[in-house]
Amino acid sequence: MMNGATVLTNLKGLLTPDPNSPWKVDRIEDAAIAMAEGRVAWMGRRTDLPLEWSDTPTTDGGGAWALPGFVDPHTHLLFAGDRSGEFNRRLHGVPYAQIASEGGGIRETVRATRAASVQELVELGEARLQTLGSRGVVHIEAKTGYGLELEAESRLLQAYKELKRRGWGLDVTLLPAHDIPQEYAGDAEGYSRIVADAWLPELVRRHPGVASYCDVFIETGVFTVEQGRRVLEAGKRLGLRPRIHADELSWTGGAELAAELRAASADHLMFCSEKGMTAMAAAGVTPILLPTTTLCLGMRDWAPARKMIEAGCQVALASDFNPGSSPCLDPLLVLRLGCLQLRLTFEEALTAMTLHAAKSLGQSDLGHLYPGARGPIALWPINDPLGLVYWVGEPYIPIMTP
Amino acid sequence: MMNGATVLTNLKGLLTPDPNSPWKVDRIEDAAIAMAEGRVAWMGRRTDLPLEWSDTPTTDGGGAWALPGFVDPHTHLLFAGDRSGEFNRRLHGVPYAQIASEGGGIRETVRATRAASVQELVELGEARLQTLGSRGVVHIEAKTGYGLELEAESRLLQAYKELKRRGWGLDVTLLPAHDIPQEYAGDAEGYSRIVADAWLPELVRRHPGVASYCDVFIETGVFTVEQGRRVLEAGKRLGLRPRIHADELSWTGGAELAAELRAASADHLMFCSEKGMTAMAAAGVTPILLPTTTLCLGMRDWAPARKMIEAGCQVALASDFNPGSSPCLDPLLVLRLGCLQLRLTFEEALTAMTLHAAKSLGQSDLGHLYPGARGPIALWPINDPLGLVYWVGEPYIPIMTP
Repeated sequence: MMNGATVLTNLKGLLTPDPNSPWKVDRIEDAAIAMAEGRVAWMGRRTDLPLEWSDTPTTDGGGAWALPGFVDPHTHLLFAGDRSGEFNRRLHGVPYAQIASEGGGIRETVRATRAASVQELVELGEARLQTLGSRGVVHIEAKTGYGLELEAESRLLQAYKELKRRGWGLDVTLLPAHDIPQEYAGDAEGYSRIVADAWLPELVRRHPGVASYCDVFIETGVFTVEQGRRVLEAGKRLGLRPRIHADELSWTGGAELAAELRAASADHLMFCSEKGMTAMAAAGVTPILLPTTTLCLGMRDWAPARKMIEAGCQVALASDFNPGSSPCLDPLLVLRLGCLQLRLTFEEALTAMTLHAAKSLGQSDLGHLYPGARGPIALWPINDPLGLVYWVGEPYIPIMTP
Repeated sequence: MMNGATVLTNLKGLLTPDPNSPWKVDRIEDAAIAMAEGRVAWMGRRTDLPLEWSDTPTTDGGGAWALPGFVDPHTHLLFAGDRSGEFNRRLHGVPYAQIASEGGGIRETVRATRAASVQELVELGEARLQTLGSRGVVHIEAKTGYGLELEAESRLLQAYKELKRRGWGLDVTLLPAHDIPQEYAGDAEGYSRIVADAWLPELVRRHPGVASYCDVFIETGVFTVEQGRRVLEAGKRLGLRPRIHADELSWTGGAELAAELRAASADHLMFCSEKGMTAMAAAGVTPILLPTTTLCLGMRDWAPARKMIEAGCQVALASDFNPGSSPCLDPLLVLRLGCLQLRLTFEEALTAMTLHAAKSLGQSDLGHLYPGARGPIALWPINDPLGLVYWVGEPYIPIMTP
């Protein structure tokens, strides 16, 4: 018997995606989970627990439902300031273009983030990670992109390096091509060149091993597919796998480019083409859908999740946590919108927030409860897991195993 | 100085609709509120506090923002059972009509509610009122309507009577015409007649003074405008003011009927006509919009709130708490959807959940903080009230004054 081994028992049940089958979810009532060295060693019906575990100390699951921890594969974790003032101006009908022309919008966040010290960024990040963790999220993707200049992007990487050192589960994505900074206004072409040719190599040189991915915002009026390809190919040469902000506000061919580059993910996709869906499915690109963004932007163009699943895509869901279009650290709201407006079943939405989210980050031992899976496991104090979506608005809080 | 008088101080600010102006909201930073006998006696800037209050004991507001308590003017508070199983079947694509034909849907709730004792109903209601109260709701409207037979509707009224006796703030609405019970399948006409001619008089006779309103679900396939008029006029003769479930799934003329009958409210209104809006504005009918229902039904036809305001309507928002289409006890989700999808400004959404909601229930001393207003007052621990909507998903909890 291994040190620290325990059998989690007194569980109303467990629910887990099957890592060997894209959309299969196992539901086992009166379950037990044997853990050793922080990983699942066995799981199944309590009455089927193998004899070898019978002398292992037990941990009381409190009658909860055990679910894998959520994985959030698209966040802009680090930024300073907030934009609640702009938020209400937009509700009052002021167009975003006017706000931006007055120096507001993303520029407000960029100013605040450039002014923040690494220490301040680390503290902001840690508080947010604590909040997410308390709500069942065990691992996230986190982007730079509110620096938009070499030194500020470098400080963001420095802060992420410190958060990783402290043990937080995160995969970092370089996103200097999040927008066109004021210094390059009107020159997306020039900015995409300096990012690709100078900043990405320099950032990787300064902070080796911190970032795993590179991302670009491909959108009408921001970066073209060509400019995006330039940045993402430069990232690939540095060992950074592409992720893409694609087809969010209009169709631009971002999903198709993601397939061409074998990107880890294409994200947003409210205006994805059917050709793009088929191409993503064939190339193994994870479509990551961000329904709280659609909600917060007041849009009614929800991403065509069902069509993507029909096209063979292994859809994931994420929070898109950011101060402009999704000030949301609530995984249950993402899950709920995944069901209620993207029309995923409960089992699909759960898989999209666990297994497929983890897979898009190459974390094969997260997002499920099969043997080999890493903890923490989320223990939800609820009669039936369906209630997590059904009782919309209830702020359920799980207990997380060590 | 009156007994129990106190000055609420150390407030970051207060925000209150002006009861004398439909959409004006006052924002006062560093505010104080003088309370006597449970009512606001004075409110304004702390530094303007009249001398007569200078010796009154103070209450520490903890640096919070003071807002009037929310009023929820459309709930189906009392029902037994839940429908999470049906909920996921619908997500799996099973049509509601099939679920209903198998005895599910509202019939499942009617069976469970008919089987519940008055005591069970009171306990369910009290737990829900406690939850709502802890989230800032100080007064609600609550309907019968899951009995659909005389004795079960009578037990619901009995339970409401007990909840009122215990001091909960609620106005009760008789809604035996919520649907057509199995016993009258295919005979909406006959059912509307027995409700109007026999049940309403008998329910009022048995439980005098408990209900103040009468409601009907006017919808294609349920009750026609003519049948609705019959029931509501019978209610009026008994002193019950009409409220109407109107134009929810299709246009049926419910808003127009509400104006004709000078109803207190017309509710849902996703498919309200412009003629209906104008008529409601002229007749002083409160349109009550229920955005969590749109969310939970997976619809994209949000009620045309902006058009109603332009037409002169004093729009209110409500939760529609019920087990089928809005299992939601979260006033902040209603507020957020009011802003994010109905496109109300923050100030409008707040007014819709306080002043206009209270007005539709004739509660002129609720929904604002002007002198004469009754407590409790909600103290929100937040930098700026805008954050209640902006930080979508945050489960803020107010402290309620006595």
